[in-house]
Amino acid sequence: MSSAEMSAPAPIEPGSRFLDEIREQPAALLRLLEGGHEFARVAAQMRERGATTIRMAGHGSSDNAASYGVYAFGLLPRWTALRDSISLTVYYGAELDMSGCTALVLSQSGRTPDVIEYARQARRRGAYVVAFTNDASSELARESDAVLDLRAGPEHAVAATKTYSNQVAALGLLAAHAAGQGDVFVEGLRAAADAMPRFVASLEARITNVAIPFAYAGRMFVVGRGVEFATAREIALKLLETCRIAAEPLTATDLAHGPVAALDSLFPVWAIASDDATLPAVVEAVERAREAGATIIASGNAAESIRGADYVLPSPRVTMPLLAPLLSIVPGQLFAWALARARGLDPDAPRGLSKVTLAR
Amino acid sequence: MSSAEMSAPAPIEPGSRFLDEIREQPAALLRLLEGGHEFARVAAQMRERGATTIRMAGHGSSDNAASYGVYAFGLLPRWTALRDSISLTVYYGAELDMSGCTALVLSQSGRTPDVIEYARQARRRGAYVVAFTNDASSELARESDAVLDLRAGPEHAVAATKTYSNQVAALGLLAAHAAGQGDVFVEGLRAAADAMPRFVASLEARITNVAIPFAYAGRMFVVGRGVEFATAREIALKLLETCRIAAEPLTATDLAHGPVAALDSLFPVWAIASDDATLPAVVEAVERAREAGATIIASGNAAESIRGADYVLPSPRVTMPLLAPLLSIVPGQLFAWALARARGLDPDAPRGLSKVTLAR
Repeated sequence: MSSAEMSAPAPIEPGSRFLDEIREQPAALLRLLEGGHEFARVAAQMRERGATTIRMAGHGSSDNAASYGVYAFGLLPRWTALRDSISLTVYYGAELDMSGCTALVLSQSGRTPDVIEYARQARRRGAYVVAFTNDASSELARESDAVLDLRAGPEHAVAATKTYSNQVAALGLLAAHAAGQGDVFVEGLRAAADAMPRFVASLEARITNVAIPFAYAGRMFVVGRGVEFATAREIALKLLETCRIAAEPLTATDLAHGPVAALDSLFPVWAIASDDATLPAVVEAVERAREAGATIIASGNAAESIRGADYVLPSPRVTMPLLAPLLSIVPGQLFAWALARARGLDPDAPRGLSKVTLAR
Repeated sequence: MSSAEMSAPAPIEPGSRFLDEIREQPAALLRLLEGGHEFARVAAQMRERGATTIRMAGHGSSDNAASYGVYAFGLLPRWTALRDSISLTVYYGAELDMSGCTALVLSQSGRTPDVIEYARQARRRGAYVVAFTNDASSELARESDAVLDLRAGPEHAVAATKTYSNQVAALGLLAAHAAGQGDVFVEGLRAAADAMPRFVASLEARITNVAIPFAYAGRMFVVGRGVEFATAREIALKLLETCRIAAEPLTATDLAHGPVAALDSLFPVWAIASDDATLPAVVEAVERAREAGATIIASGNAAESIRGADYVLPSPRVTMPLLAPLLSIVPGQLFAWALARARGLDPDAPRGLSKVTLAR
């Protein structure tokens, strides 16, 4: 292909960019590891500065990845991590003391205006500010004390896929280094990346048949708990932006506290069941949804634990529970791709969205 | 009414309990103030112990109130407050150091199992644990270092109303005492409670006409930012549990980062616009929704700032932005009441829910 053709790409099949980027995820994960020394260096800085309360800020998929960060930092170095309120700092100008804090600011492009402003304010208030971005020369990177390059590479589909999985992996990797467990995590991450191509291929072969029965669905719950709550949020966002389904992410316990009242046979539930300490709560919540007549899609590496699921999309096993989300996001991404196409939508370019969101 | 009749209530009009409890909110708020000295005492304890990182745990409406707590503590004493992950502590057993923390555990009944377990663990890990509950003799209260009685009184409708508003007020009151601004907050709270009966009555007179056009709606976005994000979450939950609408709460910026792609003329948007620093972001986000053809309901004390809204439900003004959510929740509660009835549902007793949720 000539460079002229590259700059003005020919029409391609709807969804082919999104699909290519889903397939590219294992390679993107391995690229992330090339910058591993930088993660070790930043983790050492966090320890030296005593900056062990982790504040995370980002929107959309970046904020979903931050949900994972809560568990990565809580389970590995046992630090408190929170998805910070951007508006508290940026709009209200609350003068919080952020000494003792690391602020992880997440933006694919490094150009999200209120995340940049948050980074600026967090630094002024004493936080050690670390940017997670695909553009190490972006404004966000310049406003930060350190930059962790996500190395996801150019992402052409509007809905994020490989950027999300690299953000999740990057948060896990930083947390692991902070806990002195970098090597173990890297080893597990490589194994997860190695398992991914075959997993993607096997899902591709069957996902359209799973998606088609949902061609007319208007709404869905996506249930996950603990480390998989990030996955639930990200799958729901993919369904919303590419398929225009009102998909709401819930923890297993959220479901029982109200939303279960809305369930019926026309309100499908996607459940992410991974083999960790939260599994019994997920199984129990889905049982209630099934009793209410909901159609159930079960995914995750313990998908078979969900009794009576209508569709089962199990993930390969991983070496530690914190790695499960890297694989359990894939069925959701591919389902969104297949369902968008079944609905006549283009998952590469959802209406009303652009790749870089500059709206405040 | 005899006590026999009270224990086995006669059939009543569907939704009348829910409506009674909405109307009772100003009285419940004034009851909360009767225990004001206890809030001052607990705030003093928090300061003395240096327990100035606030971890909040609760489900459903209690978790929605906790979203408000992030802003109450951030804006008044300028402390970091977070909605903590219950599963991190309860299921994964993560050994987080919670010294320097106050854990605020929220449960209407004081009987929510994993919140009780969270309280137990948080105390063991060094947190000062404070229960917010309507039952000061509950198990949750017994597992806590201090109890703040919500004094909402018996709540008979399954979907919370007055408990939610008293939780919000209680979080604000504690934060205000922590900042040495208890008196100003109490004065403003009294004024807000005083404004409420006329506000409720005026809304009651027109809300059915506003709700009926949404009788067939299957989904909705509820947009709020900053202190009103709690309101957005709580309105969405009321719509989900009483009206079976797939209602999703979003911050103004969330909307632009994906969900805007799902909007069309059949996807209504409820916007909470209150007069504070986040207002321009809310106005801008709703403008995008309107351009996408969404029907717009505007509420909040700056509802008139939303251009081209189809329905405008303005709240009375308040003396400080942190008091606005106490009034801006009311139109959402009454809309849910009216819409449930229009759909032939009983908002007092949504299918599949019970007042005390014992599910994990």
